[in-house]
Amino acid sequence: MRPRFHVPGVDAASASVALPEDEAEHLARVLRLGAGDEVEIFDGQGHLWRAEVLQAGKKSASVRLIAPLPAAREAGVAVTLVMSVLKGDKMDAVVRDAVMLGVSAIRPVVSERAETSLAALARSHRAERWHRIAVASAKQCGRAVVPEIGAPVPLEWCWAPSTRGTAPAEPARSLRVMCVEPSAALGDTTSVQLIAKPAAAQVIVGPEGGWTVTEVAAADAAGAILMRLGARTLRADAVPIVALSALLTTWGEL
Amino acid sequence: MRPRFHVPGVDAASASVALPEDEAEHLARVLRLGAGDEVEIFDGQGHLWRAEVLQAGKKSASVRLIAPLPAAREAGVAVTLVMSVLKGDKMDAVVRDAVMLGVSAIRPVVSERAETSLAALARSHRAERWHRIAVASAKQCGRAVVPEIGAPVPLEWCWAPSTRGTAPAEPARSLRVMCVEPSAALGDTTSVQLIAKPAAAQVIVGPEGGWTVTEVAAADAAGAILMRLGARTLRADAVPIVALSALLTTWGEL
Repeated sequence: MRPRFHVPGVDAASASVALPEDEAEHLARVLRLGAGDEVEIFDGQGHLWRAEVLQAGKKSASVRLIAPLPAAREAGVAVTLVMSVLKGDKMDAVVRDAVMLGVSAIRPVVSERAETSLAALARSHRAERWHRIAVASAKQCGRAVVPEIGAPVPLEWCWAPSTRGTAPAEPARSLRVMCVEPSAALGDTTSVQLIAKPAAAQVIVGPEGGWTVTEVAAADAAGAILMRLGARTLRADAVPIVALSALLTTWGEL
Repeated sequence: MRPRFHVPGVDAASASVALPEDEAEHLARVLRLGAGDEVEIFDGQGHLWRAEVLQAGKKSASVRLIAPLPAAREAGVAVTLVMSVLKGDKMDAVVRDAVMLGVSAIRPVVSERAETSLAALARSHRAERWHRIAVASAKQCGRAVVPEIGAPVPLEWCWAPSTRGTAPAEPARSLRVMCVEPSAALGDTTSVQLIAKPAAAQVIVGPEGGWTVTEVAAADAAGAILMRLGARTLRADAVPIVALSALLTTWGEL
């Protein structure tokens, strides 16, 4: 496989395409590529090209696009993983795996039992870090699309139709599926096999401490499906990958 | 939830049940429980009891069984995860998650591209470590069964009918499913939705470097199903959890 580099906003008509600094560094210093070497360029929006390195320096590199390549097929359901932020660096693996499983966007949320705050997330530039992980994961798994990592918001954002309607990655009419614990005796729960394939879905996953009764009631009132995943308690950081695998399998998209 | 302790080989008729040393230490030193406190005892074979602490010392503790409790339902398919040993401590999370997803056994194998050897695994007492993780995971997720962690063996063990027949955890007639990369153009691959529910299954997952052509050919020749998981390349340590989630969903067991 040719090495792949992410260049947002590629102009396909341009004779020379400059790589972003970190990608140039990776090309020249890590992979030690130079003029004449063949690479692949993707724009993160689903476009992929075969390309040839024109020049490579310490912090800059440029390529010439040779021909478009067929990009890997994207899932037939636009899934947004709405993930309550987990402790430490556990979100890193969640982002990496969700991208590999084909989500179209990830929306970090802060729920009542998330042990962080929007201010703390902003201070530590977590969203930028997750974006870099999403780029690396897309490269590694062969996707030409880099899922958008939305800015962290409060969980209530899910239930507010006005804000939901304005965010392009989360269609207002998408199916909403909240993963709940086996013990949550709060309204009717549905098993994954009964959830029909939608055009778009938000899959909403809680933090280590789970949801509060109020949060589950709000989801229920907003028309979300409360989905149970088997009879056993899963680790919080395993829930998104199990839920996505189970839903994509049910929808014939794995 | 009452704290749970693992006591292999409980004699339900006995007036007093002694806890293993590490469980006794957990009861007395970590949880600071003492005489009269209520706990749960499980034998790892599917039996669970409500019990009362009789005495608790530094390294010993005993309980009186009060009454049997209904144990969590086990999956209707006896799944053995046959896992090529991964690098570093990545197997720890695989064992933990596979137990939570309900496998009945885990068989570590050394395949050609596994970056370890049977001798190295024996020296570092890895199987004992994985057993401890399986016990902890069973406790945490509410299972009364601790899946058996088999001794590491070469991958070829899967294809040798004589050895397979003698290992009770891996029935000779179980369905064998080998997870293969999207790019493996080696024989026919099957998507998960087409795999009918068996009584027992071996789910065989490769190491970071994947399978060799010879290994896939041997699996094919032995009648294993070559299962692909979507069009994208997954991380090796995510494959078992995705494969188990997808199969259990297909079989109505999640």
